[in-house]
Amino acid sequence: MDEAYQEKVITEDEKYDGHIVRVTEQTVELPDGRQAKRDIVYHSGAVAILALTNDNKMILEAQWRAPIQQMTLEIPAGKVDGRDQNYLDTARRELNEETRMQAGHLEKIAGFYTSVGFSDEYMELYLATDLSPVDEELPQDDDEAIALKMYSFEEMTDLFQAGQLNDAKTLMAYFYWQTQQTK
Amino acid sequence: MDEAYQEKVITEDEKYDGHIVRVTEQTVELPDGRQAKRDIVYHSGAVAILALTNDNKMILEAQWRAPIQQMTLEIPAGKVDGRDQNYLDTARRELNEETRMQAGHLEKIAGFYTSVGFSDEYMELYLATDLSPVDEELPQDDDEAIALKMYSFEEMTDLFQAGQLNDAKTLMAYFYWQTQQTK
Repeated sequence: MDEAYQEKVITEDEKYDGHIVRVTEQTVELPDGRQAKRDIVYHSGAVAILALTNDNKMILEAQWRAPIQQMTLEIPAGKVDGRDQNYLDTARRELNEETRMQAGHLEKIAGFYTSVGFSDEYMELYLATDLSPVDEELPQDDDEAIALKMYSFEEMTDLFQAGQLNDAKTLMAYFYWQTQQTK
Repeated sequence: MDEAYQEKVITEDEKYDGHIVRVTEQTVELPDGRQAKRDIVYHSGAVAILALTNDNKMILEAQWRAPIQQMTLEIPAGKVDGRDQNYLDTARRELNEETRMQAGHLEKIAGFYTSVGFSDEYMELYLATDLSPVDEELPQDDDEAIALKMYSFEEMTDLFQAGQLNDAKTLMAYFYWQTQQTK
């Protein structure tokens, strides 16, 4: 089926080689032979973590986000970097750096492209439970200021209904957590 | 609280003014007075639609995605454009253009930033039910080739468990649909 939909890349020009993204413009040939332009934002990939404390609260982080010039409430997350062998390693490292917790149970929920219309950013969402303070604290990113918060499912529902949850991965984690409530 | 976390933008340089994104590099001052760099990808915003047929199937679209050079399965979605007064208008228009259906009931589920670490792309997810064929077909985007699919909740669960759902908004819609199954 792919052949009827596949676009052939004719040229790809780099437009910006930034700090966390690389941006190109593709000229592609559509299946019917016409040409079109595509903006592509390349990203290293990332993880996000639905971390539940032993008293069943979700760990969130309040932080400033430059693209929207606002504070957000988000689940712990971070980019894959050269130190990580795989996404599971990244999840373990970010949980340590951002929450100072380690997980007795760390399980992949899903993997997905965050905004596939223009970016290849791939993210894996993990469930972390059986949390305890880390044995060894890894160094934190020195340009990130984070305030940790913990909310029960009922408090998360209040935040959702008040329109206070406006980060995609955090909403996904909240909906997933909701699917697990009756089990 | 914001003052302890807010970053002040010192300079912002445009790096690429593309077809669907505009990319800048910000130099910011952190709360402690040091400087840092931020890549920002500006986007017009978008909608996505959990559209349920009258026999309770979810409408998905198979399409080629340039950033990952693969086919994906996604719920109907599209960018806000100059013709739309608001996100609800966009949802109504995209549902018409991509599925040729109109919704007797169209309700916002949530609004969120898709990848707030580097982009301001804001998306609203809608629930569309009571579907019927449109009275008037709007013109389709002529550089998008889409194959419509319809799946029951059980079929979606099979796709999820097989790792075939790898688009963020589609997974969010699936988890949300799951929360509604017992109601």
